[in-house]
Amino acid sequence: MFNGIHEECGVFGIYSRTPANVAHSVFYGLYALQHRGQESCGIVVNDCGVFSYHKGLGLVNEVFNNENLSSLPKGKIAIGHCRYSTTGNLTAANIQPIVVRHIKGPMAIAHNGNLINALDVRREYELRGAIFHSTSDTEVISYAITEARLTSGSIQEALEKAMSKIRGAYSLVIMSAKKLIAARDPDGFRPLCIGTLPDGGYVVASESCALDSVGAEYLRDVLPGEIVVINDEGLTSIKTNCKKKGTLCVFEFVYFARPDSVIGGCSVHNARIRAGKFLAKEHPVDADIVIGVPDSGLDAALGYSLESGIPYGVGFIKNRYVGRTFIQPVQGMREDSVRIKLNVIKKVVEGKRVVLVDDSIVRGTTSGRIVDLIRSAGAKEVHMRISSPPFISPCYFGTDIDSKDKLIACQMSIPEITKHIGADTLGYLSTENVIRIAEDADTGFCRGCFTGEYPIDVPDEMPKDKFEQKLVE
Amino acid sequence: MFNGIHEECGVFGIYSRTPANVAHSVFYGLYALQHRGQESCGIVVNDCGVFSYHKGLGLVNEVFNNENLSSLPKGKIAIGHCRYSTTGNLTAANIQPIVVRHIKGPMAIAHNGNLINALDVRREYELRGAIFHSTSDTEVISYAITEARLTSGSIQEALEKAMSKIRGAYSLVIMSAKKLIAARDPDGFRPLCIGTLPDGGYVVASESCALDSVGAEYLRDVLPGEIVVINDEGLTSIKTNCKKKGTLCVFEFVYFARPDSVIGGCSVHNARIRAGKFLAKEHPVDADIVIGVPDSGLDAALGYSLESGIPYGVGFIKNRYVGRTFIQPVQGMREDSVRIKLNVIKKVVEGKRVVLVDDSIVRGTTSGRIVDLIRSAGAKEVHMRISSPPFISPCYFGTDIDSKDKLIACQMSIPEITKHIGADTLGYLSTENVIRIAEDADTGFCRGCFTGEYPIDVPDEMPKDKFEQKLVE
Amino acid sequence: MFNGIHEECGVFGIYSRTPANVAHSVFYGLYALQHRGQESCGIVVNDCGVFSYHKGLGLVNEVFNNENLSSLPKGKIAIGHCRYSTTGNLTAANIQPIVVRHIKGPMAIAHNGNLINALDVRREYELRGAIFHSTSDTEVISYAITEARLTSGSIQEALEKAMSKIRGAYSLVIMSAKKLIAARDPDGFRPLCIGTLPDGGYVVASESCALDSVGAEYLRDVLPGEIVVINDEGLTSIKTNCKKKGTLCVFEFVYFARPDSVIGGCSVHNARIRAGKFLAKEHPVDADIVIGVPDSGLDAALGYSLESGIPYGVGFIKNRYVGRTFIQPVQGMREDSVRIKLNVIKKVVEGKRVVLVDDSIVRGTTSGRIVDLIRSAGAKEVHMRISSPPFISPCYFGTDIDSKDKLIACQMSIPEITKHIGADTLGYLSTENVIRIAEDADTGFCRGCFTGEYPIDVPDEMPKDKFEQKLVE
Amino acid sequence: MFNGIHEECGVFGIYSRTPANVAHSVFYGLYALQHRGQESCGIVVNDCGVFSYHKGLGLVNEVFNNENLSSLPKGKIAIGHCRYSTTGNLTAANIQPIVVRHIKGPMAIAHNGNLINALDVRREYELRGAIFHSTSDTEVISYAITEARLTSGSIQEALEKAMSKIRGAYSLVIMSAKKLIAARDPDGFRPLCIGTLPDGGYVVASESCALDSVGAEYLRDVLPGEIVVINDEGLTSIKTNCKKKGTLCVFEFVYFARPDSVIGGCSVHNARIRAGKFLAKEHPVDADIVIGVPDSGLDAALGYSLESGIPYGVGFIKNRYVGRTFIQPVQGMREDSVRIKLNVIKKVVEGKRVVLVDDSIVRGTTSGRIVDLIRSAGAKEVHMRISSPPFISPCYFGTDIDSKDKLIACQMSIPEITKHIGADTLGYLSTENVIRIAEDADTGFCRGCFTGEYPIDVPDEMPKDKFEQKLVE
Repeated sequence: MFNGIHEECGVFGIYSRTPANVAHSVFYGLYALQHRGQESCGIVVNDCGVFSYHKGLGLVNEVFNNENLSSLPKGKIAIGHCRYSTTGNLTAANIQPIVVRHIKGPMAIAHNGNLINALDVRREYELRGAIFHSTSDTEVISYAITEARLTSGSIQEALEKAMSKIRGAYSLVIMSAKKLIAARDPDGFRPLCIGTLPDGGYVVASESCALDSVGAEYLRDVLPGEIVVINDEGLTSIKTNCKKKGTLCVFEFVYFARPDSVIGGCSVHNARIRAGKFLAKEHPVDADIVIGVPDSGLDAALGYSLESGIPYGVGFIKNRYVGRTFIQPVQGMREDSVRIKLNVIKKVVEGKRVVLVDDSIVRGTTSGRIVDLIRSAGAKEVHMRISSPPFISPCYFGTDIDSKDKLIACQMSIPEITKHIGADTLGYLSTENVIRIAEDADTGFCRGCFTGEYPIDVPDEMPKDKFEQKLVE
Repeated sequence: MFNGIHEECGVFGIYSRTPANVAHSVFYGLYALQHRGQESCGIVVNDCGVFSYHKGLGLVNEVFNNENLSSLPKGKIAIGHCRYSTTGNLTAANIQPIVVRHIKGPMAIAHNGNLINALDVRREYELRGAIFHSTSDTEVISYAITEARLTSGSIQEALEKAMSKIRGAYSLVIMSAKKLIAARDPDGFRPLCIGTLPDGGYVVASESCALDSVGAEYLRDVLPGEIVVINDEGLTSIKTNCKKKGTLCVFEFVYFARPDSVIGGCSVHNARIRAGKFLAKEHPVDADIVIGVPDSGLDAALGYSLESGIPYGVGFIKNRYVGRTFIQPVQGMREDSVRIKLNVIKKVVEGKRVVLVDDSIVRGTTSGRIVDLIRSAGAKEVHMRISSPPFISPCYFGTDIDSKDKLIACQMSIPEITKHIGADTLGYLSTENVIRIAEDADTGFCRGCFTGEYPIDVPDEMPKDKFEQKLVE
Repeated sequence: MFNGIHEECGVFGIYSRTPANVAHSVFYGLYALQHRGQESCGIVVNDCGVFSYHKGLGLVNEVFNNENLSSLPKGKIAIGHCRYSTTGNLTAANIQPIVVRHIKGPMAIAHNGNLINALDVRREYELRGAIFHSTSDTEVISYAITEARLTSGSIQEALEKAMSKIRGAYSLVIMSAKKLIAARDPDGFRPLCIGTLPDGGYVVASESCALDSVGAEYLRDVLPGEIVVINDEGLTSIKTNCKKKGTLCVFEFVYFARPDSVIGGCSVHNARIRAGKFLAKEHPVDADIVIGVPDSGLDAALGYSLESGIPYGVGFIKNRYVGRTFIQPVQGMREDSVRIKLNVIKKVVEGKRVVLVDDSIVRGTTSGRIVDLIRSAGAKEVHMRISSPPFISPCYFGTDIDSKDKLIACQMSIPEITKHIGADTLGYLSTENVIRIAEDADTGFCRGCFTGEYPIDVPDEMPKDKFEQKLVE
Repeated sequence: MFNGIHEECGVFGIYSRTPANVAHSVFYGLYALQHRGQESCGIVVNDCGVFSYHKGLGLVNEVFNNENLSSLPKGKIAIGHCRYSTTGNLTAANIQPIVVRHIKGPMAIAHNGNLINALDVRREYELRGAIFHSTSDTEVISYAITEARLTSGSIQEALEKAMSKIRGAYSLVIMSAKKLIAARDPDGFRPLCIGTLPDGGYVVASESCALDSVGAEYLRDVLPGEIVVINDEGLTSIKTNCKKKGTLCVFEFVYFARPDSVIGGCSVHNARIRAGKFLAKEHPVDADIVIGVPDSGLDAALGYSLESGIPYGVGFIKNRYVGRTFIQPVQGMREDSVRIKLNVIKKVVEGKRVVLVDDSIVRGTTSGRIVDLIRSAGAKEVHMRISSPPFISPCYFGTDIDSKDKLIACQMSIPEITKHIGADTLGYLSTENVIRIAEDADTGFCRGCFTGEYPIDVPDEMPKDKFEQKLVE
């Protein structure tokens, strides 16, 4: 609600041993992944090779209802997607999964991530007569798979070839007439995991919390570069593109993922507790209470309290009745858009020296407003602690941390930010420790947004809409 | 409402000399063409090369409202489409106009008609790596244009080449970054006309009634095989594909077109009056009153009355308050789905010998129900007259007269049909005279659905969904 | 659509011998009465004394759908109402039927008409502590019945007493725990008729066309002043308030009622044919064709043609695809709100001397626009004929003919109107003949809006909202 | 979500010194009170004596949007209401505030509470000819005020008299043409407080969290029996009905109220912390971690941890993306309606002895399911602690704790409940301590639902719908 940093997608797929209400399972899976993308979503069901789908703008619970869910057929395979995206008139065409048909039959693709060479690849296909309905990378990936499919014996072989053509971040869930396929880019920027169903079926999902919601057992993560193929014979794996140790986005542990998810064997909740502990070590302060900004700052606040011995408290009540559209306060009235959603419990903070923990500061506006609320409620001191380092560089791999203009840490020094948000002191987690919060995860990390150093070469510039090419006619 | 025979589309385009609310003009144009397709519609606006659109399932007046119309930008060019289509989960992808982007920029296409070699052409592109998002012919046409565009200096040149690749019925309205293009297949199966705006702009539309609705002056029909290009320099024409005299669908005059339209210089209303007159000559009867089945039988009824001297009367009131969904009468109640929409004026028919005129009989169920209503109201005799010949063959050129199983004239002789619908006598217009009803139109006619003889070779079979190919993987 | 004069309501009730889907029957009845009121509607079902209802703003087909109709229980009795009303924030409370509970149980009331002493009666109850939820007369009627009920043995006896308290126009359909009751004011301003169902049940409705729609047989009209009580023992009648010959609103025959309805034994369609014939006698003209303005002018045009011998023609096509909200043409575009709905068939009128027939002229704006359309299409002369006299006085009995400011005939002489609307000649039906168009109906007529003379005393002024009393606190 | 016990209403009113967007303020106030009633809501604005309103079924954020909020006029006074109610066809008539008009002008009333003599009072009015549109107590209160108003000089005097007629729980916000009035029953069962606006205006609300949301300063609670009158001259108070010390519902502190509210000077959050502390004293246990059931068990869990020294942990993640309608898992799939909303963080509980804190147990089904989730995640022991005593008696004062059949503690002993929900041990807060959790509040308490002893006499039976009287006709 307040963060302003968005993951761009969640993906989900299911392979049931027997025809079942797989659309419902995908619905619950997407519902559990809703935090990864709230602007649009879709479900595609495969009923003996015939693909049916429903997609729309909005939350999973808004786009789907009993009527349209029930109108989707039973089947053995289904995939789904939820998406955060930039708005615009072309949005409808960009809603995923995309469903296409090539010479070998139908194919549906759900994608979490971002390609860095999409424009070049797209141009190559256009020069051969390709047409594009959307501006999404996913359609580019579809063409790459389709091209390779013409000379491949199977879709997995085609995907294997296509992966050498596309570069960047991609966790993919693909459905063909008879198979469910999951794949992750060789760097493993975005998470993707596999679960087993009691009846022998499989589920793949961006995060393990989605496995829990459908009663699946966590099996393992898809490896960086791996292609997992699920069909009636079970699960097989292609690892020819598995060449590196992964570099998972560390901000998944800091903020994006749900605390009840496990990534690379590491509990997200525990990683956040640890982030809070490191923070307490790096930026200790003499204070009376530690409170977290709901919801993403709560775990780190608990960690800070555990390490520092300063009592943990509940300082805010967040109004949970979020509606379809937020009604903006009108000019001249006393309402306040932050306070409407977040109210301070005065008795908790008044007269106290407060450690206030949040996961990040983007523009600084909301942080300033929250510090102000705490002070108005009577806090004597406010010590802001942030469970990640300052953002100083854009992300090329599937989040919207993209513009230096909007990142306060690119514009101000830490003392300036401290003053700007009205805190007494301010401490960020160090870039050294941020990758230690999930030390037990079996992966390396990308922390490019905090350092400007990326695991792979990135383009010189990252246009907001990559495909807004010049018009030539 | 009762006919059961559907035209498959209406198309509309506008080129304004200066940026204007062209989306509104397309809205009114589509509203005037609504009878050609009621299941979905869409409008695409070109604002200096940036395409914005809104599409949806439903009537023009349901899909569009002040809010979404106003959210479309002003521009100089816009096109629109309304469509009758088979329902199904994939419908959304089939809503037109389709909007794509190829190497030379964006393109939007609206299509009325049906290709007979779409499957072959599609397969050819698929073998080169093409992917399809829809099952519509229009996407095939997009590929054909895009392919030719790679080796052509302009979109019109590309279209000219593409027209030698595709066969069948197509009235097209195409928008590129800077041009509005209209084209008609070399046989001219479906109508398409041009109008001029007071400010020097142009409008193209399936029927002239849509020109009237936006204050445009009827200029002329697009010729069979002609490509009309409209841009800032005005209108130019390419006639290299104009090789034959057209063979317009004669059922456009009988039923599809709006009576206030003029096609090929001939008034549709007058053609229907003439159909009624021919009918009176071919099937005279001694009777007291002539009444038409609203709305499509009214003109022919007037013609029958004029020729026969039997007085014209108003026998039915049609309920005009049609809603979003029709509530079916429930089991065991006395309501009747025909009578709910159509009520007899008893005083007009009771004790009378009635000539009842309709445009066609498809399955015979509704005709039987209407004859029954008239008799229950006290008519002594009911003489059914149909202003077209019996349907005996499918249409391959853009209507849904497709299945012999559903056509009563393929199953029964005329005496059998007479008995089946409960009429005293039944007379159809002859196949000779049906093409004389619009004798002053400057075109020949296709009457394949009445004779089984078509202007061009047709495929052996016509699958309902041409692209439901077998799954190969 | 164009008329600007509105009836204010339609009422419907059903008594089934056995519990059935009576809500569906009321739905179809209201659908047939939709022309009497399009702004809101409601259905109340009585399931063994428990009243359930659904009401809303909009057309019957918009307010009701399969889901909410099916959620209403089965029952033996149900009533419904459709309403034209002035808009406003309090509208929701005014949607009928109103459902109340008094000491003797539940009661639902649907009312067509207008009381002329409502304000006085209301004040009397308020002085005794009554509270009002709406500004409608119907709530006043509820109080009058409830008051009398306290000292009466039955609801019909209470209604009988209440009728001596209220004055004006009222056709009522009332439902109590065990009875369906229909009543008409002693002057019989508004129509109300009774039909029988095949199973022995009864239907009451504003017009007979609603009986047809549910398969009921027309039995007779409710008499002016009569109370009809229907329960398990059948139908009984109370005629103590039947003291006068009725004075039915003659404009029901001219415009309000549906042509397929029969009122007082007289066919509405025939009355309109006769109006056209009288018009031809009163205002003959040398012309080539007679055309009616759809839909309400068509019957009179046919009558004019029959009497005059001038051929009848179809001059206009009306677009039937009316949507939820009409999109207004935007400034600077060439669209025209009249032409969007009504297009001239040029070939019918060009070069002709046209007799143009409509039912009435209110402000003159639309008439002027229509004459202009005909001339632009090439008509040589336009002779306007109106099948009713000029409006010169407000109606106090249930229509919105209320303000002299808005009635062109109060502002201009007939020559001035002729010039104003651009016609060559203009002729109105005379006040003598207007009451002869339904001469075979067994009722007298109110023609107050044409003469200023009313069957009963009317108040000096008629406030738009009778209950906007001054605030005293 | 899981509790199954519902408060029945929230009320809000504002008096602005100058005309302003008061509807927006009420919107934010109701949004803050949403937890008190989620089924319907409404806002009434007073613009110089003209009342306008919008009401509907659903959450505040669903019923209201920018369009309908903006269509309400500016004004100085407005009131609002949110409601939990039993569903049914008559619901629409029961949505509050109710808006009526009596002899002295318009009046709107919003009510939180429940009368115990409503049926008797209603019958008294019915015997004098009153009609009722709803089955709510609020309409009875309207009549009582209206009756007294006839013999009173002002609405406040009328209310003062009416209060001696009605008995039970009522916190009222009333709006007349010129005044905003707040009143609380003499026992003060339900909370109601007053705030001041910076410009000198006033706000009244069920809870202080709603004052915060509109930038109002908490002034004081309305006293039990007090009538507060706000108009242009400011705030005046009538205390003639203030005769007792209040007996506030103690469950407001346990569960109903928002933790950031202050009632009777006591912080709700602090009261819950204290409840947890008492619970630790009453039911200590040797364990590794204390976790609360979100959201209502979290504060007491923290209190239990603070008192016991057992570490506080976060054991559950609650999915916040609640939609319009919850999609039920389908038969045969593995989804689980509890787990879809609430997921365990396995790493937190596995191998641990867990103290699980919740606010109450109603039927036991959900508690059992939650214990099961914790065990499946690997907890060694589960010790359930409930921060209130067992429910053994119905509530007559405005909540839905009404049926002994549905209360597990009426059916089973505590050892039986322990076994039923699958816990190792179970401890409830004692009836002695439950009233000590808010010891610093300046009020007594009603704890009738825990003891069966009520502050005032209660009726022998409490029918679910008080007004479903027998039908007499």
